[in-house]
Amino acid sequence: MNKGLLVIISGPAGSGKGTVIAELTKGRENEFRYSVSATTRKPRPTDVDGVTYRFMTREQFEVLIADGEMLEYAEYVDNYYGTPARPVYEALNDGKNVILEIETIGALKVKQKVPDAVMIMILPPDGKTLEARLRGRGTESDEVIIKRMRTAIGEVAKLDKYDYIVINDDGCAAKAAEDIYSILRAEKLKTGRNLHIRDDYFASEKKN
Amino acid sequence: MNKGLLVIISGPAGSGKGTVIAELTKGRENEFRYSVSATTRKPRPTDVDGVTYRFMTREQFEVLIADGEMLEYAEYVDNYYGTPARPVYEALNDGKNVILEIETIGALKVKQKVPDAVMIMILPPDGKTLEARLRGRGTESDEVIIKRMRTAIGEVAKLDKYDYIVINDDGCAAKAAEDIYSILRAEKLKTGRNLHIRDDYFASEKKN
Repeated sequence: MNKGLLVIISGPAGSGKGTVIAELTKGRENEFRYSVSATTRKPRPTDVDGVTYRFMTREQFEVLIADGEMLEYAEYVDNYYGTPARPVYEALNDGKNVILEIETIGALKVKQKVPDAVMIMILPPDGKTLEARLRGRGTESDEVIIKRMRTAIGEVAKLDKYDYIVINDDGCAAKAAEDIYSILRAEKLKTGRNLHIRDDYFASEKKN
Repeated sequence: MNKGLLVIISGPAGSGKGTVIAELTKGRENEFRYSVSATTRKPRPTDVDGVTYRFMTREQFEVLIADGEMLEYAEYVDNYYGTPARPVYEALNDGKNVILEIETIGALKVKQKVPDAVMIMILPPDGKTLEARLRGRGTESDEVIIKRMRTAIGEVAKLDKYDYIVINDDGCAAKAAEDIYSILRAEKLKTGRNLHIRDDYFASEKKN
């Protein structure tokens, strides 16, 4: 069986990456596995362990870090958040594509550990659309919006570290999802992932 | 308008690359331009100038070589065959994908001149299928078949110089064509071809 692809998807707030990923995996649940992050924060009433997050103690989390079992992790407001490596590798070996929806700093850490991961950034078509989406219903002050824009632009600035850029225009999440599906189909055809084909030809060459 | 892609397609005799290319471009004539080779050989009754080949004199051909106007060329049996650069660049600037169906030596020369060309090798699923296709109707001697196999295997040996490998299994030319179409869709989303998007975001950043 062919291994699955590790697909890193980033995009600033307002890129609509959640909607695009939902479109991408809809009806293709058997091809994809969504990676569930681990965290040490307390579960909230709406959380489901193993679905929204894998909940663990600081001690458990730090053992995984020490054992190199976290593809990436970070600490926010006294809590750890991270991506456990083992379920990712298991799913890849099982032929599933694993989607990691992750911000740029974590994304680059994962890429270092898994060099053949496919890095995709989802973006609104332009800065104006991004701003409009961040303004949302117009209840926030300009100061808040500008702060959000600066964070978002900080994500966009890392765009040259990504392999592909997918534009998610208003009302076009399905098109963006098909762009990503084409990327995955193409990635599986890359020579580096298919050098075993050559062996078969040289085996038959020897027979002659 | 976005530039088209230069698509180099190689594959040994028996790969069925002609059928796959026909499937790929069927109904998409406005997206593709097929590159017509130039030659100094005499036209045959079935030839149409500008369609099967662009026919020219040795003198004309050698002027194009001297002017660097051939993406690649070779001499077989006292005749030149080659790919004139100008129609290729014109079609790319016009937003068309240009398909060059070409053997591996010529393909590598083109790649040197046009580094962002996309190189695709089409192959039968394995050496046994290749051999069966080369045997065809079984009228050739084993010696002829072995010679054909060696030539084909020589093409396969260059596979690691290609970006993608597309398998053309018996009766699956349409699938192979859609593989190639996915590759082209993905290639157009590559970051290197879309860095202009970043400029727009940094323009709006300055406004804030």
